[in-house]
Amino acid sequence: MSETGDGADSGGGATAEGAAKRPRTARGLRTQRAILDAAAVEFSEHGFYAASISGITRRAGVALGSFYTWFDSKDAVFRALVRDMSDQVRDHVAPAIRAAPDQIAAERAGLEQFLQFVRGHKEIYRIIDEAEFVDAESFRLHYSTTADRIRERLQAAAARGELIEEVGEVHAWAIMGMNVFLGLRFGVWAEDRPTEAIADQVAAMLARGLARRG
Amino acid sequence: MSETGDGADSGGGATAEGAAKRPRTARGLRTQRAILDAAAVEFSEHGFYAASISGITRRAGVALGSFYTWFDSKDAVFRALVRDMSDQVRDHVAPAIRAAPDQIAAERAGLEQFLQFVRGHKEIYRIIDEAEFVDAESFRLHYSTTADRIRERLQAAAARGELIEEVGEVHAWAIMGMNVFLGLRFGVWAEDRPTEAIADQVAAMLARGLARRG
Repeated sequence: MSETGDGADSGGGATAEGAAKRPRTARGLRTQRAILDAAAVEFSEHGFYAASISGITRRAGVALGSFYTWFDSKDAVFRALVRDMSDQVRDHVAPAIRAAPDQIAAERAGLEQFLQFVRGHKEIYRIIDEAEFVDAESFRLHYSTTADRIRERLQAAAARGELIEEVGEVHAWAIMGMNVFLGLRFGVWAEDRPTEAIADQVAAMLARGLARRG
Repeated sequence: MSETGDGADSGGGATAEGAAKRPRTARGLRTQRAILDAAAVEFSEHGFYAASISGITRRAGVALGSFYTWFDSKDAVFRALVRDMSDQVRDHVAPAIRAAPDQIAAERAGLEQFLQFVRGHKEIYRIIDEAEFVDAESFRLHYSTTADRIRERLQAAAARGELIEEVGEVHAWAIMGMNVFLGLRFGVWAEDRPTEAIADQVAAMLARGLARRG
């Protein structure tokens, strides 16, 4: 029996990237989640080329048939995983960004949440970095989507009169780059400094650097 | 006859990393340079695993024996190449940084020179990024050395009273990350914006963000 629980659903709806089918039942969602989590461990431990679908299903505790219900190939699950990690980061930092009283506080909160996410998910660097070689389009999509999101929120803040008017793509890429490298140094390599202190220093720099003077 | 041109030199002096032997003649230097330049093309076109020593020597127009005069293995030439690219970036940006009248101007000039270097050497990203998987120590050394250099010059400027006193490792990693991602977007992916304009926007942000107020 199909894990979609419904014959009509078993073909799934392929995502725009054709990476994964969309589950329409809680059980299907759980299985897909288990496969993606297992894939994160398998790919980060062995790298894409040495990783295997059987290694993923073993870790996930699911049958090989279940894997193929949701993913067509090792490439497909890798592509879905990069997209999933990108979404996880966004979902993890979004509430703190939305709750912040102003845009500098939002960028500060975004960085702090990102650093905390990285400390709990160190494998994200290896996987997204390997995408540059395994699936260049996923790599590009991850960073261009993230930069667009930052640019949009900076420009919205500029429109509200909080930030300098000329804020745009260059500032978005600069902020993303800062965050990625601070995550590498203070999230993946060593946790030798509190995330609050890092976020405070960067926020102070951005506050003076980007905030509009009254 | 050994390309070192001198029997006493033919063993070379291994670098600290054991990656390459040091030529002591102009001819040896030229040969090593030709091999490293050919290796940059070979590794960036095929990736480390598919790249071959014979592909490198063919591109360099040197005999296989000459390769082994200078490098012990494909790993060794890759390690030497990462180190060489790291040094090339440093040497390319250093004069502009030294010539700048103050530290914000120095960071501005450093970014602009870096963007120009990247536009002429787009392969640097693929090679240094692949080092994360092929030779993690080279990858780490490249970024930690670069960040240390930035931190030292920021702290020297703080000691001269130009920058805020608390400038340090976090700011250095933030600046390095900005530069790396601006290089990816505006150097490797597309050259759709003048390097001067990018450097100006970042310098303005840093000037307000890091400069000490009088």
